[in-house]
Amino acid sequence: MPGLTAPSDYSQDPPRHPSLKINSKDPFNAEPTREALISSYVTPVDFFYKRNHGPIPIVDDPEGYRVSIGGLVEKSVELSMDELRKLPKYNVTATLQCAGNRRTAMSKTRTVKGVGWDIAAVGNATWGGAKLCDVLEIIGIPKLSAISSLGGKHVEFTSVDKCKEEKGGPYKASIPLRLATNPGADVLLAYEMNGEVLNRDHGYPLRVIVPGVIGARSVKWLDRINIIKDECQGFFMQKDYKMFPPSVDWDNIDWSTRRPQMDFPVQCAICSLEDANVINQGKITVAGYAVSGGGRGIERVDISVDGGMNWIEAQRYQKDTSYVADDDHYADKWAWVLFKAVVDAPENAEVIAKAVDTAANVQPETVEAIWNLRGILNTSWHRVRVQKASHIVKSNL
Amino acid sequence: MPGLTAPSDYSQDPPRHPSLKINSKDPFNAEPTREALISSYVTPVDFFYKRNHGPIPIVDDPEGYRVSIGGLVEKSVELSMDELRKLPKYNVTATLQCAGNRRTAMSKTRTVKGVGWDIAAVGNATWGGAKLCDVLEIIGIPKLSAISSLGGKHVEFTSVDKCKEEKGGPYKASIPLRLATNPGADVLLAYEMNGEVLNRDHGYPLRVIVPGVIGARSVKWLDRINIIKDECQGFFMQKDYKMFPPSVDWDNIDWSTRRPQMDFPVQCAICSLEDANVINQGKITVAGYAVSGGGRGIERVDISVDGGMNWIEAQRYQKDTSYVADDDHYADKWAWVLFKAVVDAPENAEVIAKAVDTAANVQPETVEAIWNLRGILNTSWHRVRVQKASHIVKSNL
Repeated sequence: MPGLTAPSDYSQDPPRHPSLKINSKDPFNAEPTREALISSYVTPVDFFYKRNHGPIPIVDDPEGYRVSIGGLVEKSVELSMDELRKLPKYNVTATLQCAGNRRTAMSKTRTVKGVGWDIAAVGNATWGGAKLCDVLEIIGIPKLSAISSLGGKHVEFTSVDKCKEEKGGPYKASIPLRLATNPGADVLLAYEMNGEVLNRDHGYPLRVIVPGVIGARSVKWLDRINIIKDECQGFFMQKDYKMFPPSVDWDNIDWSTRRPQMDFPVQCAICSLEDANVINQGKITVAGYAVSGGGRGIERVDISVDGGMNWIEAQRYQKDTSYVADDDHYADKWAWVLFKAVVDAPENAEVIAKAVDTAANVQPETVEAIWNLRGILNTSWHRVRVQKASHIVKSNL
Repeated sequence: MPGLTAPSDYSQDPPRHPSLKINSKDPFNAEPTREALISSYVTPVDFFYKRNHGPIPIVDDPEGYRVSIGGLVEKSVELSMDELRKLPKYNVTATLQCAGNRRTAMSKTRTVKGVGWDIAAVGNATWGGAKLCDVLEIIGIPKLSAISSLGGKHVEFTSVDKCKEEKGGPYKASIPLRLATNPGADVLLAYEMNGEVLNRDHGYPLRVIVPGVIGARSVKWLDRINIIKDECQGFFMQKDYKMFPPSVDWDNIDWSTRRPQMDFPVQCAICSLEDANVINQGKITVAGYAVSGGGRGIERVDISVDGGMNWIEAQRYQKDTSYVADDDHYADKWAWVLFKAVVDAPENAEVIAKAVDTAANVQPETVEAIWNLRGILNTSWHRVRVQKASHIVKSNL
């Protein structure tokens, strides 16, 4: 493909920030510390989680790069970065979350397959680029189309990377045409992240951003866009990132019985505390992030220090302003809220957080009820176990 | 208002089907039996729950009836039924659910205020009418508008009924303009229900249908549509139908801290069993409905007969066809699915159902965690307590 190639080993991967916690080196999968994650509303590029399936592609000819748009279209086109930049530019602040976020905790119940993630496979960035619906209009597919004149119902994105899951072929995924052509869905072909050119880890020169949807559909290093009849048959659509019930394990799985996951459900996590923390008597600060998929806002975040008997509502904010989830103040529809509460140090050594979204969806109480063999979408109440300093003193007496 | 008036007492209320379970007589609030509710995919008008706040209005001059559209618009208009019928007609099969559905069960935890409902304050009908976005286009508000040229951001619907909560004034509610002008949201001004003229209980001559949103926003007996800057200040928007945390009770409530509820969360209930049922050894049929708000489909319904240790997946269907939630087979986006599973009779006398929606949102395990003083949106796992015939025989020995 013009201008963009994927190396076959990891020797040319870019440097990364040394504070990242590496969950897998080759391919490089890493997340920031809990503390770094909530140090700012917009996550700095360095601290944004890295999720890869192969060596990082290289743009060897920026001028020569083209994204191809074909499939069930009247006429295929190739667009250069200059042509994309000439389309109306949108800046959308959106939270990306890996479907595997919080997988490590799910694995404690029963082992699941997949990269182990703590709670920081999530980040909030301002993505700049063209709207996919504007690009599709160029090839004759009007806005708000559910089916194109040639019968296309899905939009497939193909990368240039080399994934072992695709037997050395590129990563690919699709979204419904209905979503792709909806201006309100804010699906972007993004070339900027936080006001700067995308870096290599995050998809330079061009990536897809599908707000409110699991990160796996926001394909990086974009090579082709195909209008197709049925959804993409790639590994990550058909054999991964589907939500199974706890009763299904590797010996009785039938992948065809489930849809590829799109929207993610309501989620929150405490980032100001680690499971190993020793806390003092008195007050502690419980801070973290909360986010829901599909453009649903966060209605409330509740904190408990007595095992869920009593709850205190946390303060929520986006940017520097108090967050009020109505149409006037809903600054960033697709973005997380950060939350903070100052509470009494827990008696029973457990701090719990749970969020409610604007559709009144809640997080499930236990991980057991949502356990699934791929370990995706662990949105159970987030529990942090801490130790009281006084207890330690006592045990030393 | 032209052609449509509200009596001041209940003497002119229409006749209702005698099988309905009456939860309040004046105003008339009633629901079908569990068995009747799931006897068909499209709920017959007779068995559709009735939710009223005053005497049922009367159309005394069908020819003279007009709906007024005003507020922040360049020019107010009045539309007759003939004019509405000349607009493109849409038939949308959508499930309406009262936010108070399953309130009686929530009250068992701690008393809540409101009409007591079992599990049938929900119904699925095919609504016929004009799209609100087409009507708004007539008065110069384009599709997909979030704000009108004169600064309108909400669309208020005013009825003609007389509610004691509004001090004898009419019921009213609003939805965001963004939703009202979105063709994909399928908001209707409906004049038909299941292919027949709306009957009086359900809003004759004209009502609003807001699919995927709590029933309280689908205003009946429509008198006026107002384009307004801030959301409707009526009782049912500002002092009711808001979701509070369990920590808030009548002595510490601050209504201004919450948004009016719009979308409802994932829900399901077992309708083939009553709490009092005596069941035989062997197999029993567990059947019911599952639905989620905001156009999210149902991904799965799980049944347990051992207190939630093990789960069996139920079959799901819409109309007469097996339900597959992809873009090809997603027959009715806004409608419930019915479900059915044949399972072993429970050992511990409890049958549980819970649903997962396409955004992987789940129902909460217990009612305690979502208890709220107004008793809305009880979507906790549905549990039915039954008795085994053999146990009864034994106790008679």
